[in-house]
Amino acid sequence: MSSAGILIIGNEILSGKVVDENSPYLCHELRELGVDVERILTIPDVIETIANEVRAMSDRYDHVFTSGGIGPTHDDLTIEGIAQAFGRPVELNESIADRLRRNARGEINESTMKMAMIPQGASLLDAGDLWFPLVVIENVYVFPGVPELLRKKFESSRERFRGVPFELKHVYVTVHESEIAAELHELLVEFPNLLLGSYPKIRETEYRVMLTLESRDTGYLERALDSLLLRLPEHTILKVE
Amino acid sequence: MSSAGILIIGNEILSGKVVDENSPYLCHELRELGVDVERILTIPDVIETIANEVRAMSDRYDHVFTSGGIGPTHDDLTIEGIAQAFGRPVELNESIADRLRRNARGEINESTMKMAMIPQGASLLDAGDLWFPLVVIENVYVFPGVPELLRKKFESSRERFRGVPFELKHVYVTVHESEIAAELHELLVEFPNLLLGSYPKIRETEYRVMLTLESRDTGYLERALDSLLLRLPEHTILKVE
Repeated sequence: MSSAGILIIGNEILSGKVVDENSPYLCHELRELGVDVERILTIPDVIETIANEVRAMSDRYDHVFTSGGIGPTHDDLTIEGIAQAFGRPVELNESIADRLRRNARGEINESTMKMAMIPQGASLLDAGDLWFPLVVIENVYVFPGVPELLRKKFESSRERFRGVPFELKHVYVTVHESEIAAELHELLVEFPNLLLGSYPKIRETEYRVMLTLESRDTGYLERALDSLLLRLPEHTILKVE
Repeated sequence: MSSAGILIIGNEILSGKVVDENSPYLCHELRELGVDVERILTIPDVIETIANEVRAMSDRYDHVFTSGGIGPTHDDLTIEGIAQAFGRPVELNESIADRLRRNARGEINESTMKMAMIPQGASLLDAGDLWFPLVVIENVYVFPGVPELLRKKFESSRERFRGVPFELKHVYVTVHESEIAAELHELLVEFPNLLLGSYPKIRETEYRVMLTLESRDTGYLERALDSLLLRLPEHTILKVE
């Protein structure tokens, strides 16, 4: 079982100009792989803030995923922040520089060449059909902010994160949360290791609450589900999936 | 000028079951009001984590907005976490209890009554046409996780956050980011207080980069925009808004 932190870097998210699509995607994929995301943090493009938060997450979680701030412009400060987090200098990587030159098919300017500057000792992972590799420093995976590129890069590296996934069951209930809160509490006394979620939905017309039951142990999950269905009055259950 | 932190509380976000709609909404609204959101943090439903992060954000920012974890079930631990953050006991609030009784039109169970338990000394703000008030402890505003309810509650309290808003201009450019990076850098040397964003868009067919220029000073923003338009080759500019 491994843990993860997600660090979203970008003023555009904090100022409400761009909606972060990357953390929902990563949370969903990592859950499926059996990785526990314990924290998502969105911070501005400020080197010292990036450095502090990368360091803290790297110490605390098995994997850290950063998104954003790795392009050629003035506000792309992620690489510098990560280098500072680990006290490493930033240096030109010849392998990336070669790719940049090939991709540009000719002369490339200083701004583009900035993208070949990475922290000393970083590893490069092949990123499938993308010409730019995935940069890894210690346990920190450096992803781009553009959602399409992040997804392709994640796809190319996803298998290295695979652990024991959770099994998930949904129970849709037609009464209010407060009418079943006692039963949920009793269920957790019987199954203390069950991950039980209760989500009221006010836009839905067919049900009022979606319950989620999760465990990495399929037998335990089945027994907990049976126990829940016995506790709830039959007419309150719309469906189980 | 005031600052804000947003704290999203809920395992359902971290496990990828629910996409957080509340932080994008709050970021957008707060920006319009002139409030700087400096951090968004998503954490699990764990009392000690909630307490630590509420305390840290409350010390650091003018306003803290929490979302989620205030219902009647076992995983609703936000109120206890906030109470612990400020070293206050949780106690029954008679005004909320009365509303709960009126709303239920009769007997109410213990789980429902949990929603009337709030930290000692909290204030209640009227929440418009919602029967449940907005709970405020020091500079922490406690919002529900259900997006429709969060929005209604925010609408009822938004004017208290109004400051000097940013003016925003968009410039859509038809060349790659790296081709204009030098010009953007020079613009910032001339206008160091300009907030300048550069966002490559790969799904768009009409332009390649969206530039955003922001300032609280309209004259400064206009001068910076004029300067940018002079620096960029005319054929690279698709439109200015």
